[in-house]
Amino acid sequence: MKSYRKELWYEIPQRRQLINITPEIQKCLAESDIREGLCLVNAMHISASVFINDDESGLHHDFEVWLEKLAPEKPYSQYRHNGYEDNADAHLKRTIMGREVLVAVSAGKLDFGPWEQIFYGEFDGMRRKRVLVKIIGE
Amino acid sequence: MKSYRKELWYEIPQRRQLINITPEIQKCLAESDIREGLCLVNAMHISASVFINDDESGLHHDFEVWLEKLAPEKPYSQYRHNGYEDNADAHLKRTIMGREVLVAVSAGKLDFGPWEQIFYGEFDGMRRKRVLVKIIGE
Amino acid sequence: MKSYRKELWYEIPQRRQLINITPEIQKCLAESDIREGLCLVNAMHISASVFINDDESGLHHDFEVWLEKLAPEKPYSQYRHNGYEDNADAHLKRTIMGREVLVAVSAGKLDFGPWEQIFYGEFDGMRRKRVLVKIIGE
Repeated sequence: MKSYRKELWYEIPQRRQLINITPEIQKCLAESDIREGLCLVNAMHISASVFINDDESGLHHDFEVWLEKLAPEKPYSQYRHNGYEDNADAHLKRTIMGREVLVAVSAGKLDFGPWEQIFYGEFDGMRRKRVLVKIIGE
Repeated sequence: MKSYRKELWYEIPQRRQLINITPEIQKCLAESDIREGLCLVNAMHISASVFINDDESGLHHDFEVWLEKLAPEKPYSQYRHNGYEDNADAHLKRTIMGREVLVAVSAGKLDFGPWEQIFYGEFDGMRRKRVLVKIIGE
Repeated sequence: MKSYRKELWYEIPQRRQLINITPEIQKCLAESDIREGLCLVNAMHISASVFINDDESGLHHDFEVWLEKLAPEKPYSQYRHNGYEDNADAHLKRTIMGREVLVAVSAGKLDFGPWEQIFYGEFDGMRRKRVLVKIIGE
């Protein structure tokens, strides 16, 4: 069994943004030299998400509006977590979007359906944060 | 390390439906000849879900009502994704329900609690779509 | 490839509670003698969750309030699942929080970011329920 590990660093210049990290995960898979196995990609921070969906800007706008409806940022005082912090909503938004994805690796490729793309979802940005890539297999 | 891969195809005759796919996953596991490992089951489409819950029709009705409350299908115009499409709500519903499940394989069985069953959740049906099964182990 | 399996039992003395189970998962990893691989931790019951977030009591209060807003416990009659049962809301709350987490194992440790902790989320307590730990690797 082979294993591969890499940290990817991101610094998003605003509070919230979704970015397509599929090309970087493909590069990791190529480096790993693993052809059959499983590829875990997870946010290492608890106010960010890694998820799979469509790379379509209208949908990304819909996600922003929807997450603000389900877990609004303001007023900050509505959340008890917001004593010294103001990011309680980011923890809730990341809960909806998910911490991690697990992608099958088949014949040396990410084994994706036609529209699947991997995104880093930042909900409390403006600082350096990490994504972990761990691949095991042969 | 052994690995096994299979695509399961579904064509749901209506927009939304939850179907129990546990027997098909058990058949895949038997074919794989893997006794200890991990079994990934994921929707290959981004408007569908694979999740684990109870096979109880009252609960499935509750899921339908609840998802329509959290991410309503109509009016279509409320979502920017719905230019040429009308399925933005399906992307949001699948986000709540999840893309994938990972099930432990122990002694050649899906290592389940007493009521765990695997479901395919279709939120934008009436066309052929796929579920991926990937099992690794020994 | 090595594999390790353990069931952890919990009996929460109230309907809902979040408890930090990270030390018990670390003990499992030490017992497994696995240094590189993947560690799956999942609720074996469909009205409970395993998730990763922050061990901060204000945030846990916020989760309670938020989940009650998204999937209220009462009135019980609002859910069709609640014929002989009263726990439909627990199935929905667990859906939001997630069934499982998958944690990379690197150099014999849970490969965590700075604040990541694993929680058992009970949403229908006052009886004995289980969490499954399955680790594979080398």
